[in-house]
Amino acid sequence: MSHTAEIIAVGTELLLGNIVNTNAKDISQALAGLGISVFWHTVVGDNPQRLKDALDIARKRADIIITTGGLGPTYDDLTKQTICETFGRPLVLHSDILDTIRGYFERNVHMNMPENNVQQAEFPEDCVIFDNPVGTAPGCAFEADGVHVLMLPGPPFEMLTMLENHAVPYLRNLSSDVIVSHDIMTFGLGESPMEELLREKMSHMDNPSLATYAKPSEVRLRATAKAATAAEAEAMLAPVVEEVTAFLGDVVYGIDVPGLENACMKLLKEREWTFATAESCTGGRVAERITALPGASAVYRGGVVSYWTSVKAGVLGVPEDILDAYGAVSEETARAMAEGARRVTGADIAVSVTGAAGPDPDERGVPVGIVYIGLATPEGTFCRPLDLGKRRRDRIQDLASNHAFDVLRRYLTGLPVEHP
Amino acid sequence: MSHTAEIIAVGTELLLGNIVNTNAKDISQALAGLGISVFWHTVVGDNPQRLKDALDIARKRADIIITTGGLGPTYDDLTKQTICETFGRPLVLHSDILDTIRGYFERNVHMNMPENNVQQAEFPEDCVIFDNPVGTAPGCAFEADGVHVLMLPGPPFEMLTMLENHAVPYLRNLSSDVIVSHDIMTFGLGESPMEELLREKMSHMDNPSLATYAKPSEVRLRATAKAATAAEAEAMLAPVVEEVTAFLGDVVYGIDVPGLENACMKLLKEREWTFATAESCTGGRVAERITALPGASAVYRGGVVSYWTSVKAGVLGVPEDILDAYGAVSEETARAMAEGARRVTGADIAVSVTGAAGPDPDERGVPVGIVYIGLATPEGTFCRPLDLGKRRRDRIQDLASNHAFDVLRRYLTGLPVEHP
Repeated sequence: MSHTAEIIAVGTELLLGNIVNTNAKDISQALAGLGISVFWHTVVGDNPQRLKDALDIARKRADIIITTGGLGPTYDDLTKQTICETFGRPLVLHSDILDTIRGYFERNVHMNMPENNVQQAEFPEDCVIFDNPVGTAPGCAFEADGVHVLMLPGPPFEMLTMLENHAVPYLRNLSSDVIVSHDIMTFGLGESPMEELLREKMSHMDNPSLATYAKPSEVRLRATAKAATAAEAEAMLAPVVEEVTAFLGDVVYGIDVPGLENACMKLLKEREWTFATAESCTGGRVAERITALPGASAVYRGGVVSYWTSVKAGVLGVPEDILDAYGAVSEETARAMAEGARRVTGADIAVSVTGAAGPDPDERGVPVGIVYIGLATPEGTFCRPLDLGKRRRDRIQDLASNHAFDVLRRYLTGLPVEHP
Repeated sequence: MSHTAEIIAVGTELLLGNIVNTNAKDISQALAGLGISVFWHTVVGDNPQRLKDALDIARKRADIIITTGGLGPTYDDLTKQTICETFGRPLVLHSDILDTIRGYFERNVHMNMPENNVQQAEFPEDCVIFDNPVGTAPGCAFEADGVHVLMLPGPPFEMLTMLENHAVPYLRNLSSDVIVSHDIMTFGLGESPMEELLREKMSHMDNPSLATYAKPSEVRLRATAKAATAAEAEAMLAPVVEEVTAFLGDVVYGIDVPGLENACMKLLKEREWTFATAESCTGGRVAERITALPGASAVYRGGVVSYWTSVKAGVLGVPEDILDAYGAVSEETARAMAEGARRVTGADIAVSVTGAAGPDPDERGVPVGIVYIGLATPEGTFCRPLDLGKRRRDRIQDLASNHAFDVLRRYLTGLPVEHP
């Protein structure tokens, strides 16, 4: 049976334009992966009458309704109450969940639970409860007259955790087809050239299908197959992934790898190597990305954010004559920064970034977007010079940190690093 | 007269979760500034029947309908046609606009206009046309039976340009009220306790109103007033902002300041001081946040990401006997890290972070969530010990970086730093 879903976000802050509705996007992606068609997104404020109106419209045109938000402890969190009124279900207090919420407060917040959190332990009669390990608001799901209603929390990271752990498994049980996807991760080719390259292939493909998704400065190619079993879907996907990967060559940095830093961590672990960073214009983004990964200490020793020239000289030991002759944003300085980071940390390999991220040119007049990536290795030192153009500061910083990981990845896989 | 608006986004790519609906957020913000209440956001696919259904619902509950998307030249761009059918208006070809679109192609795309672009020159009879200097799809607006319908393009940059140049002036003519908001930014008090504290005040306030918005580990209090003029709204807000700020005391770190790092940058600039960082468990997040701000080099010299103990010793000069006796995650090490960062960079003040971000306890068994923030100053060294609880790794890293800025902010404003 084919399902039709509507996503209803509840929150006045969305209607005031304070935040963007990323939850609708994330849920839609997950449902697309399950073969469930989403035909409507709706946003209403923290207003019970308008939420009731939205539910009355939704139950006529969808058989899966997913709400986000309004599960919190405050007086304007009314999603559960309003849904129960609309669908004629009583709310029931779950004392075991109340204990869990009290425990969360004592353990994580070191205070007694405020009394208004009690409403977070009340649920519709006869529902499946979705626990929330990263917040206080559990979610839930029930079926009424052939309509499945799922309630998820509003804060995106709580919603995502519950979506993955509870809502997706719940919905997968409703559907007979299995959808499997694999992501071919690439860096170094834009979305348009990628689509040009693959147009012939993509236009002839329906199942499996191939679609491009652009992240800033990366393109993810998603191959998706629908079949009766996961094994069947995998068998349909394998030749497509293999053919496209071979066709694209070394711009592919991994299959189902979340980011370039994950690819680098894997390569470093395989060699049992450690690395270090020296960052100027990226200001710690390369370090932050690698240390966001659990277990980073196996491969990452540390680094220096040498924002001032005096720190490049004093902490990294970049020779003053290089800084004087070529300036802070130069190939020579990038090389000396990487060598310095490798030396002071004792790492096997070190990557450096120096450049002009803007909005103004650097003090010597180097234009915005000029960036040098250095790489110090046991075999010698390399450099990738870049002109990233007059982009926004945060885009240049993101893109430069991606190039730093790409230089590392290419070296560790035996490819030339000087060009992306 | 008070208006009620609904925003309808048209585009299957939104329902597939390929893109996020930033247009709804941007239009909502603009309308809030005009005193127009947005009660609904709706998203439908490129499907004429479902768009017609959405329009039929919207015209019953809103007197301003703003659509985005579906104004392009392809066969599935059906917004104008569907709106004209729903509201019973004929479409009329505007030959002058057809010429403009032909010219755009010749000038910017260097090709002849494809014939399917002709539909972009057709408009509802008796409408106001919104020209599009940054794309080929003009927008338009008309009134029918007391409902104003505005059609804007889907690509965000084109939408924003047209919103500002045409839609906002069109809507301003419909409304007499102005809405002004100010954000009271706080750190150190959760959303629930904040609401408990302010419940009495908040429940008695309608205009100006007061609402809380939680960011991870911060709470923003927004005070909003509606009046005939901006000056009148400001006069209504001033006593509220003053009273609430005084009531909350030193958890308030600024009014209309985007984040703690911005507050620190301002305080450092006032003193003409520079600062430095030494980070272990935050892995560069403090450095990354300050260097995300344009002009950071005026106050930030640089820092060390001392992820390994050997880097704490070798680069920051943390004495080996301190590391041996107390371990990497300890008050003593936090103090020595801050002192080391201050010494090696020559900054006036330095902040350090060391802790166990998880998922596993540190090598000496320090539990996840234990974090120490050090601060080295010309007056001596301070430390804030924290137990952030068994949160997710990225939440601990975010929260710890917020505490680092809070310690810096409190010191620079003459407050004790040991407790948040």
